[in-house]
Amino acid sequence: MEVLPVTGIGDVSPGDDLAALIAGAAPWLRDGDVLVVTSKIVSKAEGQLVDVPAEGPERAAARDEVLAAETARRVATRGQTRIVQTHHGFVMASAGIDASNVDRQRLVLLPKDPDASARALRAALRERHGVDVAVVVSDTMGRPWRNGLTDVALGAAGIAPVRDHRGETDPYGNELHITQMAVVDELAAASELVKGKTDQVPVAVVRGYLSRPGDDGPGAVTLVREAAADMFSLGTAEARAAGLREAALLPLDPPAAEEPAEPAAVERAIAAVAGVVAPGTVFTHVPGEGVRATPPRSTDAATLVRFGTDLHRLRAALAAEGAASLPVRPVLPG
Amino acid sequence: MEVLPVTGIGDVSPGDDLAALIAGAAPWLRDGDVLVVTSKIVSKAEGQLVDVPAEGPERAAARDEVLAAETARRVATRGQTRIVQTHHGFVMASAGIDASNVDRQRLVLLPKDPDASARALRAALRERHGVDVAVVVSDTMGRPWRNGLTDVALGAAGIAPVRDHRGETDPYGNELHITQMAVVDELAAASELVKGKTDQVPVAVVRGYLSRPGDDGPGAVTLVREAAADMFSLGTAEARAAGLREAALLPLDPPAAEEPAEPAAVERAIAAVAGVVAPGTVFTHVPGEGVRATPPRSTDAATLVRFGTDLHRLRAALAAEGAASLPVRPVLPG
Repeated sequence: MEVLPVTGIGDVSPGDDLAALIAGAAPWLRDGDVLVVTSKIVSKAEGQLVDVPAEGPERAAARDEVLAAETARRVATRGQTRIVQTHHGFVMASAGIDASNVDRQRLVLLPKDPDASARALRAALRERHGVDVAVVVSDTMGRPWRNGLTDVALGAAGIAPVRDHRGETDPYGNELHITQMAVVDELAAASELVKGKTDQVPVAVVRGYLSRPGDDGPGAVTLVREAAADMFSLGTAEARAAGLREAALLPLDPPAAEEPAEPAAVERAIAAVAGVVAPGTVFTHVPGEGVRATPPRSTDAATLVRFGTDLHRLRAALAAEGAASLPVRPVLPG
Repeated sequence: MEVLPVTGIGDVSPGDDLAALIAGAAPWLRDGDVLVVTSKIVSKAEGQLVDVPAEGPERAAARDEVLAAETARRVATRGQTRIVQTHHGFVMASAGIDASNVDRQRLVLLPKDPDASARALRAALRERHGVDVAVVVSDTMGRPWRNGLTDVALGAAGIAPVRDHRGETDPYGNELHITQMAVVDELAAASELVKGKTDQVPVAVVRGYLSRPGDDGPGAVTLVREAAADMFSLGTAEARAAGLREAALLPLDPPAAEEPAEPAAVERAIAAVAGVVAPGTVFTHVPGEGVRATPPRSTDAATLVRFGTDLHRLRAALAAEGAASLPVRPVLPG
């Protein structure tokens, strides 16, 4: 497999014919090559640019406004870093909005539909330049848990985004369960190695990976994992704050659960608050009913207020154990 | 840049001389090549194998025990999936323990120190086989937000793990701020494309990327982001549960804050609980003091208990706003 830089493309402006620019710079393109194109030149050719002030607080305000427009959902914020999910579904810092390799009066947005961009570029190369290649539209992304960034695929056409080994067996006869390789991301990463950032090499060609391109295929959108299916759909600080907010709003009378609470979970919740509730407050798990809460004997105003606090502590602890639907019933004096 | 598979290595057993196996299978290795070696054969050569029962509940129990031993910190759990941080610092499903490409009586653990493994392999190839290459030890990892897996670097020697563009300017004169590319991860990804999973090609060579190898360098450990520096150090469900648990334990008298609470944050907290507190309960922010909480006029036992619950609701709401240090002071009757 070879990874070849495409040099000499130069600056790209709105309305430019990207297929012609690439075919001109790489007359050596062959059927079956995978063309990996930096999303920025796709965006520029498609006019995905926004005018902003070159500096000052107006620039920051304009950037914030553009970011809000590109954001479908906030994921995490720390200091100046804003990680959001875009309308495409990509989770990226600053929604992939880029101020590099463009003049200071403009910001570059992501392509509106990178799979469609890949399909259009592929069709133009096939129809007008006689070469049948696969196309990957790539961009740089950060990732949790690891320093440094890598390039991944935002769009793809003519290539299956995932190589699926499920159902195959290894030479020892073990079935391979989870090995779905995100090959278009790996192609984007491989291409970044020859593209660099400041060298004005926005396109690379991977030769020898595909035996022949297929249909346009499902596109890189298949690599987007929905937030509901993702174990990291929110930043840790944001999810922790969501838990605190949820605790603030837990109902006095929770709706009945479909499943009874697991007794061990209830015991864990009672144990969790044992060190902070008032001495004399007693929580008793009554299966099928809830937790019966008995206050200390002395029932002056301060004790009753403290008891009410302790009831809510237990509600929060139950919710932490996934048993928020279990009612906590005070046994009040008089 | 070329990415070349190394075929014919065959099965690897504890004690095997990996350098000799690779040099034998790839006599065409050259100075400056980057050798990307699947961690599994490194582990096998180093004897990082554990005996387990071939099937049944004993197998599952033994696996759980091995996983616990390899786990430094639990990150997230959903269904059968356990994402943990290993003692190396890698965040991986099942701590990278692998049951594929090994007989059913054994599990393969990660190499104990993949950077050391890379250095040792590099030294052996240089000293005993006369070729000066860089070495990357790779493995397959999942990632948040994107379906499919890619290969990344667990270990590296003879190559800078990151290509750092900070301080450079683009052709428009914009300074590049954050572009630190994790090139060893991109090399691992590129190599996976030619290695495949069931084809017994555990090694690939990237030729033409490095002009010449340097020192062993800092290793792939530099790509490990510490949990404290990571915005996604815990799964969303786990962090939310941590927030609920924190709410259960919030102190009645919080330690004094170094910074005064932001008044807008306090107002947001009061507004957040407005719909759930008892009618007549009044929260008043007294700057420099805390929140003064006045109960409804009627002060029977049930009202006082409810008031205590409402105080704790506000504590949780304040904590969600980052103002947990603000005391909530009840003004009790009589």
